[in-house]
Amino acid sequence: MEIQPVLINGQWISSTGSKTFQAVNPATAEALEACFPVSPWEEIESAIQAASAASKEMRGWPGERFASFLEAYADEIEKRTDDLVQTANLETGYPASPRLRDGELPRTTDQLRQAATHAREGSWAQPTIDTATGISAMFGAIGPVTVFGPNNFPFAFNSIAGGDFAAAVAAGNPVIAKGHSSHPGTTQIFAEAADAAAKTTQMPTGFIQLIYRTSHEDGCRLVSHPLMGAIGYTGGRSAGLTIKEAADKAGKPVYLELSSINPVFILPEALTERSAEIAEDFKGSCLMGTGQFCTNPGLVVLKSGTATDTFIQQVVQKFEEAPAGLLLSEGVQKGFQSGIKAIQSAGATLLTGGNASEGPGFSCANTLLKVTGSQFLENPEALQEEAFGNGSLFVVADTDEELAQIAESLEGNLTGCIYSHTGGNDDSLYDQIAPGLRQKAGRLLNDKMPTGVAVSPAMNHGGPYPSTGHPVFTSVGIPAAIHRFSMLQCYDNIRPHRLPDALKPQNPNPNLWRYIDGMYTTEDYNS
Amino acid sequence: MEIQPVLINGQWISSTGSKTFQAVNPATAEALEACFPVSPWEEIESAIQAASAASKEMRGWPGERFASFLEAYADEIEKRTDDLVQTANLETGYPASPRLRDGELPRTTDQLRQAATHAREGSWAQPTIDTATGISAMFGAIGPVTVFGPNNFPFAFNSIAGGDFAAAVAAGNPVIAKGHSSHPGTTQIFAEAADAAAKTTQMPTGFIQLIYRTSHEDGCRLVSHPLMGAIGYTGGRSAGLTIKEAADKAGKPVYLELSSINPVFILPEALTERSAEIAEDFKGSCLMGTGQFCTNPGLVVLKSGTATDTFIQQVVQKFEEAPAGLLLSEGVQKGFQSGIKAIQSAGATLLTGGNASEGPGFSCANTLLKVTGSQFLENPEALQEEAFGNGSLFVVADTDEELAQIAESLEGNLTGCIYSHTGGNDDSLYDQIAPGLRQKAGRLLNDKMPTGVAVSPAMNHGGPYPSTGHPVFTSVGIPAAIHRFSMLQCYDNIRPHRLPDALKPQNPNPNLWRYIDGMYTTEDYNS
Repeated sequence: MEIQPVLINGQWISSTGSKTFQAVNPATAEALEACFPVSPWEEIESAIQAASAASKEMRGWPGERFASFLEAYADEIEKRTDDLVQTANLETGYPASPRLRDGELPRTTDQLRQAATHAREGSWAQPTIDTATGISAMFGAIGPVTVFGPNNFPFAFNSIAGGDFAAAVAAGNPVIAKGHSSHPGTTQIFAEAADAAAKTTQMPTGFIQLIYRTSHEDGCRLVSHPLMGAIGYTGGRSAGLTIKEAADKAGKPVYLELSSINPVFILPEALTERSAEIAEDFKGSCLMGTGQFCTNPGLVVLKSGTATDTFIQQVVQKFEEAPAGLLLSEGVQKGFQSGIKAIQSAGATLLTGGNASEGPGFSCANTLLKVTGSQFLENPEALQEEAFGNGSLFVVADTDEELAQIAESLEGNLTGCIYSHTGGNDDSLYDQIAPGLRQKAGRLLNDKMPTGVAVSPAMNHGGPYPSTGHPVFTSVGIPAAIHRFSMLQCYDNIRPHRLPDALKPQNPNPNLWRYIDGMYTTEDYNS
Repeated sequence: MEIQPVLINGQWISSTGSKTFQAVNPATAEALEACFPVSPWEEIESAIQAASAASKEMRGWPGERFASFLEAYADEIEKRTDDLVQTANLETGYPASPRLRDGELPRTTDQLRQAATHAREGSWAQPTIDTATGISAMFGAIGPVTVFGPNNFPFAFNSIAGGDFAAAVAAGNPVIAKGHSSHPGTTQIFAEAADAAAKTTQMPTGFIQLIYRTSHEDGCRLVSHPLMGAIGYTGGRSAGLTIKEAADKAGKPVYLELSSINPVFILPEALTERSAEIAEDFKGSCLMGTGQFCTNPGLVVLKSGTATDTFIQQVVQKFEEAPAGLLLSEGVQKGFQSGIKAIQSAGATLLTGGNASEGPGFSCANTLLKVTGSQFLENPEALQEEAFGNGSLFVVADTDEELAQIAESLEGNLTGCIYSHTGGNDDSLYDQIAPGLRQKAGRLLNDKMPTGVAVSPAMNHGGPYPSTGHPVFTSVGIPAAIHRFSMLQCYDNIRPHRLPDALKPQNPNPNLWRYIDGMYTTEDYNS
């Protein structure tokens, strides 16, 4: 059987590994034809060496070089749209349209083009100048970045096309992409497009590279290699924490986006006011993409009463009426079921769903569970188990105090939402809950479900551990996401002609913002 | 014997611990009278609980509250100047003047006042507003911060008065200070001043607390406690890595400043031009504070030749003529000697010094060692051992290529310097060395020794591992140092009256810079 090549140092080469794997079509549970290699250590080591050489060659390159690549790459991706959509549809079960073709693909090229704009402008590097002392500083490239992509966004978070990739390149780094095993064919097409763009824009051969899979041990060696600059990882908690431990021990910056259950508090008067509308919002958000979003609302906190009983009944009915979507893999299906079982074991009642669906593909019935507030507070850790998929847990609290305590007892999450009465009837309760929830979530929302993650400079797709590895950083939102893959570089008494252009007296770019003597400006300064 | 109290939850209380310790006067090697407790776990736990309560009470407080405290505290410190200088002189052996009274103390109060100015202004939080999507974000307080202070700056990096303390408070957090065991009396006086200021400015009782010492195990429990927000640590590598491992495992942001040997490259034509001047610069920098600076130049890289031979002879003579200063403790003295022995074992020749000085206090002869460039490149790790104290290692390379390779082989450092000919005669060699050195050092210098660390917004007192734990952050330089002790907080569709003032349409402070729709401005915006 033909084995697909890996992209190492500018060449598509046959892997020297003996192990292989195939993606599985979630709609049929059957393996797809293409066969991909598990890279052995020597291959990974050669990728690291090539990336390091590229990193050295690119030192001091202007942002324009990286912007040109990112734009050429976005164009190449658009040329491959049909291939990408068709392959990703087979590998993920996501609908070709609107999800893949009209949603995720334009989002991906838009991210790459936004990253290009910011790489060219350079304000992301926060040039800071203190004319009195002759000291200046800015963020600069850190070196080879390894990106681990997740299963659930084959385009927008792809290891060689998604947000981490765009940010790492915009910061001026080479990338070693470790594709997700569930969509290797999709990742290969991206890598072909990236390779074409890299050649057109004359980037070094080790600038972008692709391996599909490694052993766990080699994954740890990769992230802790002395030549590694930083690591981006999006995916499950267990594998993520293994990567984190290896990277931490070697002192390598590692940016993880892990699990999150995204609590939604729906306050009593909001339900009195617009129960049906919120139920519809919630159903749409929770079942979107069969619940396989990092920001899927997996926990809904309510106050007991007849309006809440009615709301829950409405949602149960909607979940039962809605078709159960495909799940990405057998692993996701099993993980979802075992998550539901764990939540039941911790005391929750199953309201609907819970079982795998009939049929050849990977699917589970839309699922809802329920616990009381006091049950939740007795066992908050077990009841915050993530069941990744098309399900959610209702927590019905008896008192306002319980609602506030639940907010305080949450683990770190990407998001936290509060729905409240539009006329202010819930405001006193809001004020009891919001301060606690604020500290537990990277993004606080009002009256809106968390699944949409706008690529905005003000976005935070991040949050306290364990939702991510560090609460200062966001993985979505440009320019903020870029400087994760950089280091702060200070220049003290450096002769002016040796400074990077962005720190010289004359501003090289009228759109470049610099912080000069305590003021942000696009003007020049006098040395 | 009377045992000094700890400051827990606003009260100076007797420790419940049974173990005690005393500081030792480095000038006499005799224990000082005051006896300090090792806090048992229950005491530490009660400090954490009090800090957590304070953190909740202060949620949403304006920067003004923290600014008022910081300014009142700087005033209180000035009232205690004589006590502080006298006690620190006994505990550290540093001269009362100019070092303590005229140098470090004003620097400390200046840092606190700068932090106050920035806490009040609020630009450190980088308010970011995207009016098109209704999303905004800023950095906010993270929760209780534990600060571990080092031995070598009893004022400016003191756990309850130094840079980490000032930054953690400016971000809106309570601080648990873990004083350094070598200057507990100094730390106690600061804590008394801080406590007075906290009471005057009506801060919560758990806002600032002091413990002097813990067991290693309890130190790890402290930094990994679920209620902990973040950790600042400055000190030795071994203890720092233990703290890092515990904090990393618990997902707590930990900011470490560890060892650094601060390489200085002196290029051939610079020596031809101004050898005597550079020798004097180097001696002053290397022997300042008996070499006990994080930025002490511990590695000097030169190119072989008669000018280099002469330079080394000049420096040896100066080191032999200069009196050997006091070292901070017996531990520092032993560590310095064992560092020198390790460097010798790795192949270096001792040029002068190496032994403990005669006399009652802790002191070693001013020390210089030498290796060739090829020796260094054969064994770079062992020859980068930090010998913390009044010594340095010369590396004499034979070729330009060796100089460049040495730069590439360095570990992460806080600083890297290059001295070159003022007329440009070294520029070609500079260009071979600087790009590699740039990636290995947080701060790159020209023609200037690294020991001065200006408190400038453009300063980076940070660098790649192992000099610190994360190369994006600096521990000196306001406002940049502040946001280490924060989390990114995004507001999505939040009703305008519920937003923090800094994100509302009307700018609450004419000096507050905000990033609105891709532009920095102090203006209002239209919602």
